[in-house]
Amino acid sequence: MTRFSFSINATDGKARRGSISMQRGEIRTPAFMPVGTAATVKAMKPESVRATGADIILGNTYHLMLRPGAERMAKLGGLHSFMNWDRPILTDSGGYQVMSLSELRKLTESGVEFRSHIDGSKHMLTPERSMEIQRLLGSDIVMAFDECPRADQPRDEIAESMELSMRWAKRSRVEFDRGGEHAESAALFGIQQGALIEDLRKVSADKLIDIGFDGYAVGGLAVGEGQEAMFATLDFAPDQLPQDKPRYLMGVGKPDDLVGAVERGIDMFDCVLPTRSGRNGQAFTWSGPLNLRNARHAEDTGPLDERCSCPTCASYSRAYLHHLQKSGEILGAMLVTEHNLSFYQQLMQAMRDAIGAGQFTQFASDFRRDYLKADT
Amino acid sequence: MTRFSFSINATDGKARRGSISMQRGEIRTPAFMPVGTAATVKAMKPESVRATGADIILGNTYHLMLRPGAERMAKLGGLHSFMNWDRPILTDSGGYQVMSLSELRKLTESGVEFRSHIDGSKHMLTPERSMEIQRLLGSDIVMAFDECPRADQPRDEIAESMELSMRWAKRSRVEFDRGGEHAESAALFGIQQGALIEDLRKVSADKLIDIGFDGYAVGGLAVGEGQEAMFATLDFAPDQLPQDKPRYLMGVGKPDDLVGAVERGIDMFDCVLPTRSGRNGQAFTWSGPLNLRNARHAEDTGPLDERCSCPTCASYSRAYLHHLQKSGEILGAMLVTEHNLSFYQQLMQAMRDAIGAGQFTQFASDFRRDYLKADT
Repeated sequence: MTRFSFSINATDGKARRGSISMQRGEIRTPAFMPVGTAATVKAMKPESVRATGADIILGNTYHLMLRPGAERMAKLGGLHSFMNWDRPILTDSGGYQVMSLSELRKLTESGVEFRSHIDGSKHMLTPERSMEIQRLLGSDIVMAFDECPRADQPRDEIAESMELSMRWAKRSRVEFDRGGEHAESAALFGIQQGALIEDLRKVSADKLIDIGFDGYAVGGLAVGEGQEAMFATLDFAPDQLPQDKPRYLMGVGKPDDLVGAVERGIDMFDCVLPTRSGRNGQAFTWSGPLNLRNARHAEDTGPLDERCSCPTCASYSRAYLHHLQKSGEILGAMLVTEHNLSFYQQLMQAMRDAIGAGQFTQFASDFRRDYLKADT
Repeated sequence: MTRFSFSINATDGKARRGSISMQRGEIRTPAFMPVGTAATVKAMKPESVRATGADIILGNTYHLMLRPGAERMAKLGGLHSFMNWDRPILTDSGGYQVMSLSELRKLTESGVEFRSHIDGSKHMLTPERSMEIQRLLGSDIVMAFDECPRADQPRDEIAESMELSMRWAKRSRVEFDRGGEHAESAALFGIQQGALIEDLRKVSADKLIDIGFDGYAVGGLAVGEGQEAMFATLDFAPDQLPQDKPRYLMGVGKPDDLVGAVERGIDMFDCVLPTRSGRNGQAFTWSGPLNLRNARHAEDTGPLDERCSCPTCASYSRAYLHHLQKSGEILGAMLVTEHNLSFYQQLMQAMRDAIGAGQFTQFASDFRRDYLKADT
């Protein structure tokens, strides 16, 4: 059985349509991965996540190592059976969240020492420990351990951080390959750094290619630089990575971010936006985002989106969803999250179809015309 | 088509098994009605509520009149389509919750003036307004408007309150019957009061019977008097009500309360316990309640209940449910609520089966032996 293979079956400009084959299932690309932070895609049952069209979800190493703990998870049979999701799971390395969420961090060549944001307990993450945790979780796509600097730091700090991440990428590769059975069934992705700087991105890409990975992530974007700067970087960064491997833009993004990134050659995405927004009453539609708390929805018997095929749009009015949000009801979070994840998957499917039909430019133009309307 | 009919198809001691036929569907009795306070059974999709075996749910007049409002609900097509539940809905009268939740109440012969606990706005509930609201909601089983006194008040206050409720019951009947189409499709239940006092309960029952209702509720219990006093009252109160009409014990209760009340001739129940407990991590099982926050569940790969047929027990371990509770995840509320509602419906089905087999005494004895164990 194939451990990992990626094939591109259509291209349109820089946009690519393809498929990743793994033992736990196929991943159609361009792919959007819902985020299952703490072993649950928030407010969703796993069968409902699958029904939206998701082929793969993401789990967070940082959260899971703290609770329930990696060794405990292994003892319980791994993340898949724990959360009742039998398809592929990509896990991040913990590097990003340890810097954004934990307390009292100490960064050295070896790794990062930190205290848990939950109970203050002391932990250490290194490339080796990150690989071990992701192996204990039973991850299908393992991410190399890296450091993600702020994009607005001086060039020399960006360069220094990137070089450290590349040394950690090498250590991640070595440790992953020592993983026995797990290494024979899982894949390892490297992460390009270098912030917004083209030549640093190129150095990073070349070092990663030299090490060799199953796929390559564009890291260090969507950290506050804005869509224009992100797109400017995506105008060159994906081209520096291998054509025949999947390219994953981490932590992105808004629907219009996804369209612009696919246009620039990205194959995979993850983001908390559809789930987090769903809990806050923000719904995504083909006509743009809308806030269900707005009083104008109180007597609107129409669905969230006339074009949407999700269970929420089939059975519930905007008026009802408005009522649930105003009342702080859990069902409101459930129904809008389900819609948002469905909408994201419908958007990915529409992009895959447009690439296959050789009409991606037209699709992207039509999408932006409808989605970026001012009055939503 | 039948507006409302009740038939008893088996009895065992005082326990009765039967069926209520209404236009929106059949209600198997003894029946447990999940509570859908604010137009949602909290943390559950309506199709999942139905899948637990629920034939009917309860809606709260007090909550719905304040948000989204009765007139708005009528404009939107009524409660059933609003919340996507097409089977029977029983609505309470608002009388109980206006006394327990609202602020600045003023009780007169006419009704109750109060301020909303949501926004402080002033409202008036009378028997006539309660009937109108329940009609605007599109209720299938309408409850007469009553006052529910504390059970520990002096006899003369209990008597006075009961007499007021009986005058309101008459006014409820008159107003309900003026409801045109709604009166031709819905049913009206009266509510017996009189706290724990047998002769007052008898006076109340006789006055209700004189007015005439489709069913009769035993009100004023489960307000803090304890199970022993409640059962002592249920030893006589149901017998004072008509044999050939359904008897509904409002706001009850724990699983062992249900068994003891069915044993004493009760046909219908509602309670927030399975849903509220589900959100707090308390699960009901055939071996008694258990608290999922307890650390002893952290590595338990078994289901909540080996005998349970619900989706939660089919796919998730106690260890996972413990993790979700500790992490404050919405999915924890969803899965435990679904289990609890399923458990309640399995209990009702088991009671209906036992009555049909003429083995209710044995069933109740076996149930209590397993459920009331000390070490759960």
